[in-house]
Amino acid sequence: MKIPYGGDYNPEQWPKEVWDDDHRLFDEAHIDTLTVGVFTWGLTQPGPDVYDFSVLDAIIERATASGRRICLATGTGAHPAWMARAYPSVTRTDFEGRKHRFGQRHNSCPSSPDFRRFSAEVAGRIAHRYAGHPAIVAWHVGNEYGGACYCDLCAAGFRDWLRSRYGSLSALNDAWYTTFWSHTFTGWDEIEPPSALTEHWRGPDHTAFQGITLDYLRFMSDAMLTNFRDEKAAIRRSDPDTPVTTNFMGLYRPIDYHRWAADLDLVSWDNYPPDDRSAARMALAHDLMRGLKGGQPFWLMEQTPSVTACRDVNPLKRPGVMRLWSWQAVAHGADAVLFFQMRAGRGASEKYHGAVIGHAGRSDTRVFREVAALGAELAVLGPMTLGARTPARVALLFDWDSWWALEISDGPSRLVRYLDVVIAYHRALWQLGADLDVIPVTAPLDGYDVVVAPALHMVKNGLADRLAAVASGGGTVVATFLSGRVDENDNAFLSDVPGPLAALLGVRVDEQDAREESYVNPVTMNGTTFESRLLFELVLPRGAEVVGTYGADFYAGTAAVTRNTYGDGHAWYVGAGLSPEGVTHVIREVLARHGLLGPCADLPDVETAVRVTPDGERLLFVLNHGTSPVDLPDACAGTDLLSGHLVRVLGPNGVALYRDPARTPSTGGGTPARR
Amino acid sequence: MKIPYGGDYNPEQWPKEVWDDDHRLFDEAHIDTLTVGVFTWGLTQPGPDVYDFSVLDAIIERATASGRRICLATGTGAHPAWMARAYPSVTRTDFEGRKHRFGQRHNSCPSSPDFRRFSAEVAGRIAHRYAGHPAIVAWHVGNEYGGACYCDLCAAGFRDWLRSRYGSLSALNDAWYTTFWSHTFTGWDEIEPPSALTEHWRGPDHTAFQGITLDYLRFMSDAMLTNFRDEKAAIRRSDPDTPVTTNFMGLYRPIDYHRWAADLDLVSWDNYPPDDRSAARMALAHDLMRGLKGGQPFWLMEQTPSVTACRDVNPLKRPGVMRLWSWQAVAHGADAVLFFQMRAGRGASEKYHGAVIGHAGRSDTRVFREVAALGAELAVLGPMTLGARTPARVALLFDWDSWWALEISDGPSRLVRYLDVVIAYHRALWQLGADLDVIPVTAPLDGYDVVVAPALHMVKNGLADRLAAVASGGGTVVATFLSGRVDENDNAFLSDVPGPLAALLGVRVDEQDAREESYVNPVTMNGTTFESRLLFELVLPRGAEVVGTYGADFYAGTAAVTRNTYGDGHAWYVGAGLSPEGVTHVIREVLARHGLLGPCADLPDVETAVRVTPDGERLLFVLNHGTSPVDLPDACAGTDLLSGHLVRVLGPNGVALYRDPARTPSTGGGTPARR
Amino acid sequence: MKIPYGGDYNPEQWPKEVWDDDHRLFDEAHIDTLTVGVFTWGLTQPGPDVYDFSVLDAIIERATASGRRICLATGTGAHPAWMARAYPSVTRTDFEGRKHRFGQRHNSCPSSPDFRRFSAEVAGRIAHRYAGHPAIVAWHVGNEYGGACYCDLCAAGFRDWLRSRYGSLSALNDAWYTTFWSHTFTGWDEIEPPSALTEHWRGPDHTAFQGITLDYLRFMSDAMLTNFRDEKAAIRRSDPDTPVTTNFMGLYRPIDYHRWAADLDLVSWDNYPPDDRSAARMALAHDLMRGLKGGQPFWLMEQTPSVTACRDVNPLKRPGVMRLWSWQAVAHGADAVLFFQMRAGRGASEKYHGAVIGHAGRSDTRVFREVAALGAELAVLGPMTLGARTPARVALLFDWDSWWALEISDGPSRLVRYLDVVIAYHRALWQLGADLDVIPVTAPLDGYDVVVAPALHMVKNGLADRLAAVASGGGTVVATFLSGRVDENDNAFLSDVPGPLAALLGVRVDEQDAREESYVNPVTMNGTTFESRLLFELVLPRGAEVVGTYGADFYAGTAAVTRNTYGDGHAWYVGAGLSPEGVTHVIREVLARHGLLGPCADLPDVETAVRVTPDGERLLFVLNHGTSPVDLPDACAGTDLLSGHLVRVLGPNGVALYRDPARTPSTGGGTPARR
Repeated sequence: MKIPYGGDYNPEQWPKEVWDDDHRLFDEAHIDTLTVGVFTWGLTQPGPDVYDFSVLDAIIERATASGRRICLATGTGAHPAWMARAYPSVTRTDFEGRKHRFGQRHNSCPSSPDFRRFSAEVAGRIAHRYAGHPAIVAWHVGNEYGGACYCDLCAAGFRDWLRSRYGSLSALNDAWYTTFWSHTFTGWDEIEPPSALTEHWRGPDHTAFQGITLDYLRFMSDAMLTNFRDEKAAIRRSDPDTPVTTNFMGLYRPIDYHRWAADLDLVSWDNYPPDDRSAARMALAHDLMRGLKGGQPFWLMEQTPSVTACRDVNPLKRPGVMRLWSWQAVAHGADAVLFFQMRAGRGASEKYHGAVIGHAGRSDTRVFREVAALGAELAVLGPMTLGARTPARVALLFDWDSWWALEISDGPSRLVRYLDVVIAYHRALWQLGADLDVIPVTAPLDGYDVVVAPALHMVKNGLADRLAAVASGGGTVVATFLSGRVDENDNAFLSDVPGPLAALLGVRVDEQDAREESYVNPVTMNGTTFESRLLFELVLPRGAEVVGTYGADFYAGTAAVTRNTYGDGHAWYVGAGLSPEGVTHVIREVLARHGLLGPCADLPDVETAVRVTPDGERLLFVLNHGTSPVDLPDACAGTDLLSGHLVRVLGPNGVALYRDPARTPSTGGGTPARR
Repeated sequence: MKIPYGGDYNPEQWPKEVWDDDHRLFDEAHIDTLTVGVFTWGLTQPGPDVYDFSVLDAIIERATASGRRICLATGTGAHPAWMARAYPSVTRTDFEGRKHRFGQRHNSCPSSPDFRRFSAEVAGRIAHRYAGHPAIVAWHVGNEYGGACYCDLCAAGFRDWLRSRYGSLSALNDAWYTTFWSHTFTGWDEIEPPSALTEHWRGPDHTAFQGITLDYLRFMSDAMLTNFRDEKAAIRRSDPDTPVTTNFMGLYRPIDYHRWAADLDLVSWDNYPPDDRSAARMALAHDLMRGLKGGQPFWLMEQTPSVTACRDVNPLKRPGVMRLWSWQAVAHGADAVLFFQMRAGRGASEKYHGAVIGHAGRSDTRVFREVAALGAELAVLGPMTLGARTPARVALLFDWDSWWALEISDGPSRLVRYLDVVIAYHRALWQLGADLDVIPVTAPLDGYDVVVAPALHMVKNGLADRLAAVASGGGTVVATFLSGRVDENDNAFLSDVPGPLAALLGVRVDEQDAREESYVNPVTMNGTTFESRLLFELVLPRGAEVVGTYGADFYAGTAAVTRNTYGDGHAWYVGAGLSPEGVTHVIREVLARHGLLGPCADLPDVETAVRVTPDGERLLFVLNHGTSPVDLPDACAGTDLLSGHLVRVLGPNGVALYRDPARTPSTGGGTPARR
Repeated sequence: MKIPYGGDYNPEQWPKEVWDDDHRLFDEAHIDTLTVGVFTWGLTQPGPDVYDFSVLDAIIERATASGRRICLATGTGAHPAWMARAYPSVTRTDFEGRKHRFGQRHNSCPSSPDFRRFSAEVAGRIAHRYAGHPAIVAWHVGNEYGGACYCDLCAAGFRDWLRSRYGSLSALNDAWYTTFWSHTFTGWDEIEPPSALTEHWRGPDHTAFQGITLDYLRFMSDAMLTNFRDEKAAIRRSDPDTPVTTNFMGLYRPIDYHRWAADLDLVSWDNYPPDDRSAARMALAHDLMRGLKGGQPFWLMEQTPSVTACRDVNPLKRPGVMRLWSWQAVAHGADAVLFFQMRAGRGASEKYHGAVIGHAGRSDTRVFREVAALGAELAVLGPMTLGARTPARVALLFDWDSWWALEISDGPSRLVRYLDVVIAYHRALWQLGADLDVIPVTAPLDGYDVVVAPALHMVKNGLADRLAAVASGGGTVVATFLSGRVDENDNAFLSDVPGPLAALLGVRVDEQDAREESYVNPVTMNGTTFESRLLFELVLPRGAEVVGTYGADFYAGTAAVTRNTYGDGHAWYVGAGLSPEGVTHVIREVLARHGLLGPCADLPDVETAVRVTPDGERLLFVLNHGTSPVDLPDACAGTDLLSGHLVRVLGPNGVALYRDPARTPSTGGGTPARR
């Protein structure tokens, strides 16, 4: 047993003589796991009643012959051309109301009975054929579920979903606040999907009725989940045990992965960060993925070994970066390291996408050499990290409903984006070295010393009470502007802002001022002044202590940041859009109180992460995302398990892995608090 | 009698127990007038043959019980969901050719016979039910008419409108210049609405045929006017007297308010300026609204007490700004000061829009306190300003046809926007303190000393002669680049530019040069040099005196600004896109000649405005839009009617109101001219 | 015989009394040639079975009476309104899938049988009526062919075109690489035009399947060529000899003019450069047009005498610029100088477009005076330049397939635009004074010393061998980044980059790095450092000498520019996006080697161009595009044929034309090489 290493492999695109070259090179690179069949629907089902598994058979046979394991896809990420022609219901209707015809991928209407029937059928047949094959280690359903459809079938599905959610039109009218703008519905069939033809203008985020749009987002996420369930059920008829997954996309807005997580046996995801300054962002995404199933390790299903192709500009991953990011994934809970893709396609839109093997089939390329080196390293490591868990005492709340609600809101500011706020708070936690879980708002909070809830716009289902319990028990809660504003239907609370959180936070927000990006209001905390931007809430302390005050405008001198003592703990409220430095200032105080500052908290480019193995061994990962060598503090120096060397200085893109039972769970400054 | 104070009130969105809270707070804030029922169509007509006035009855009863007056809406600003479902003709087809389904508001096709029948019927029933109710002081038809429809019904309506306008296809072909690009129409049914599917590209302003697009703009404005007339006629069957209005939107391009004005008994409008540097722009809009019905006072139907919600960024109105802007409205002719809205909605797209009463129902908010304070002030003022008129000796011409023609023109510059030019000239007049009327090109001009006609692209119906009469009688006319270019069909005059204005202005324009925003050509006038941008006409004096010359390019040294002596008066021509300072330089000379410089002409942030009450009393408003206190000149100091104090210094956002029969109509510099 | 002078003339837009004015002014301006009837379809065919040539008759009669020659158009650039109404197949369906209705121009579906029948019929009737008329010197078919259609008829046409290209679905599936994303086609009718509804997102350049989109571009170009052929064939039935042309648009992407060239008897084009810094770009376009038919002179069919109208900003052509650019056209091979348009239209979208005669009909305008002066100059020149050829020893390859393939590619960079690369290399050649041909990749290369092939993304049909032959014979080949990447189906070569060019260039490209515009990597060549941007290939020399090296990033010190000795010649490879200065540095070395630096190579604003007349006389054009007078080198001074004066200093916008058999073909620095 070791970390599976390999990735997407599409030999159906090549003559068979190439396959042997592939496997020779795979051996050279210690590649042991192949994801097969992701877009083979047209190949395996060339007509409505015709199935042909000969190519899949050959691929699997050849791979097995070389001892490789297989993650086998159902191939339904794109429907075949004949299906779009003969069964037009399978194509989508877009936000603009345009019925699409055959093309692209991820192109199926989730509500199409034809698509549902055909996709379940092909998944079932594949499972029936290959179930029990010893090489198969996982099932891969569909591919990167996402997008949306607005066809009449989806409209009908939406109405059914609403009937089930609300029971009556009267309840729906209340939830959607339809007395506004004469929107009272008197029949279910009057309800339209919210689109450019109905409630929207300027695109998907601008809607006249947030309640309708919010429910459509939920419905569409559920409709695609139904597609996943269709296929998984078909697989389970032949194979009751092998884990079934689909590849998620990390910080992806259209699908509420928390609503999906229970249906997956194994979370896997594709890591394509926007740029090479994304170290913290990737850590957040890893933690979010790990948090989907209560901390269970996940698979890194895809990453590019070198470049992407779909961006306007596709820079190279610099030498060492692919290795660094692969180890980062492991540090955050990945139990597999896989690439897209094994060999570069010749044609179409991914022909310039990075691949382990290029068009010329060489092994003397920089990329292949780096892939092979990492393969060797993983082989040496063996099973050590498999199944290890992250011992987090900090939780970051992540909530698709708040994400959606905040970003489809009219007012106060389109410039405040949910992810920006989450990323800002996560980055501070990450930089200061706190091991943390990213969890849904429904998760138990009692295991955490610190709970950070950025831009928690929607508060529902007793969350306020659970947060209060964290503080009253001695922990610390951190909340920000635009929190506690709406209930689960996106209706404003009829009480002082921040609604159900007001008592915990000890403040009342009287108004909020929104300004253009270029405007700065300085906020002073403990004698230091930080910039704040975009949003400025006018916070009236109602029990809380003022920690930071505004420096400008008519509310100069009033509270921008507060801390309320609540029970044995603290509840912070950050009413201003603080700069990263300002956020870090707040978070540093919070972590220090609980002794949770990491050993490299003062080395901004150095990431540390801990995993505890199933037999209780503590592993410390140290990663240098910077461009200069770093002198490590004693707590982070030692004998690196990867190199076997004693490491005191970590070079650029450097990685070190230590096993040290002596290291204490928290080695940071500050005095450990309760628990 | 006093200025009505209050605004949009939607208690149908709330449980009845809230209504008593509302009225208690209304009393506290001196709110005496409520606009009711603006979006209640779905409520009052829950089905094609069902009417239910119980909620409206209760609202009116409760309001009346507290002695409040009511502006009662017909509620047709959004049609009900059942109507869109059962009578699809009521929804619009957009510029892209997409048939819309139910959603948003202002969503009805103006040509739909179903919409016309239903809207007239509901308006008639409401009028029949409530006519004669003593609380009702005005009828509010529809809401913010606007937008456009491109459906087949509108196409048919357009053809009828064209038949009526042109009589024959031959006349239409001439007017539209259809020999160009093989466009000769040989049958009425060949004519299509100009849209993205026919004559347009890159959006509504880019058309292959200006004549077609111009006529569609006129038709669409007329079609919506027909909708207004339908409802007004239905109201008049029950109530012959109470004024009927609809809320206009100030500087709103799609509707030619001059074509509508005669049909309204009372002009009202909604003031949502783009930002807090809009003092001059709001003054222009007020004056335009007042000018719709020959100077008759208007109602400020809506303004936000604090924030908007629909903008990307929604900043607060700073303390004092709401009061300042309310008094500015009164200074320019408002006989009512109303807000949107009385209580903040819980859900949908306006839940974060400012309201007198917030979600928590408090009176101890900054906003409520400011509203209540203004209410008290208005109560003290009483009837003093009601019915007062503005004694303007300056007219600014405003012409929707020129606006449309200029902005749909191909060439010379898309960067020259009609409103920018109008605003630039108005701002100079405003800053220099001239009381002015903003009037249509059809209005009599003989009452004015000065007529300013910015970007008068289209000249029609003897306007050139009427302008010439102003000058020959001793007055001053100011015209600018891109004037006198086209006739009423947007066909170029077959004579020297500026066409019918050439004799009056004493110039011939040989060519015009257009340049990017970043290019500056300096223009020197009377020894001072000003920047000019965007458009540079090559002006050949043909009798006119050269006042300003270009400083750069091959036309350096040639005329940019001229003044022609015409009869006893002057006619200025400004051929260059002068900077604000340059425009002010020209306008200052013009006003000085007629002794029309205001008393605060040298205080750029201080606005003055005069109203003369029905009994001849002269009221002077002084408003400080700046952020610093200002020492007022003697002519603007005295006992403020609002505070009762002697005012010599006016603070930021300060307002003073004086009654002083001794003040002369013009107290500015310069020697008074004839009249 | 002399250069035809005149242009588009639309007297059908005017009452006949104006026509005499026109001809009087034409005489004054030495205008001898009129393009007539370009948009007269609605006039000549007012109904499906009705033809009326009375107006055309009168126009031609009047023109002939004044001795003018006529370029007679078929008028099919826009279909009549009745046709769109009665035969809806003639209108286009756009990329978004929207069926258009009547409007604009260039509006016909190329696959519509109705359009094809009607257009051929009207062309045939016009030819039948006017063939043999002595005034007619050319036939002008359609107008500025372009755009695209995506209707069902075009879909059917596309499938036919594909059947003919590929023979079988199996070959098509191979070519399009359809195993990718489950795209295998099992029936021809499954194939859809690539559009926003099928393979595209974010617009026409973003496609999931490059092969499909590339073929649709080829098909659409061919479909419109069929339209041209329809009309030409109809003309040829009555007139076997008079040249038939259509007006091209220079650097116009949607139509592959190389695929069209053989069908035209005479190339003509419309020159509307984007701005007044386009001297080099216009030279490129002229050379491209001249290269369409092997160097045969072309007609400048349209240029504006002063301003355009369709741009956002339409600046004037400064004094002298129209003359300068007209002579530039002649210098590059124009045998006609024509304007759009003779008299300004009154209405619609070109009423502000420049014209020889303005709305007021004056001759005392700057524009008319300049037009008349040039007319006089051309009259004096007489036949001297007619039929002259450019003696180029340098070839620049221009390839629509590479243009399309590069710009629809996903990866490596959307910022690298084909035309930008071509323009950069052409500009260097132009500035250094090399007479050059712009030729298709199918053209013979053996007449050239230097072949420059910028961004030759696609290499096909033995081109690599022909380029190698140039080098092996002693010549120089210059290639750049992103060359030799794909075959004719846009499938990557299964060999080292740059594919078939690798042996010639002596390099292997291991990877390419793409970066944002703002990033600069310095490249040092021969001790001088130049900026490079956007794309950076990691070039491994495999025989080539390293000429330039990167200065930054992990590939600092590695090869950016190389030169391979190949046979007796050189092959350069430029792997980085060099700045203009860097490109010029490379090109200067190349030209110097062959003694091809022009006489004004060190005067950046001065253009030189040589034409050799049919009787072997050598004419040298010298043009000063700068704003300062220039001292000419001896080789460029002499007696100017236009002015008759000895010219040693050339003023801004100045033109000189010399006849001097003594001048050697190459007067630049460097030692002449072989040939």
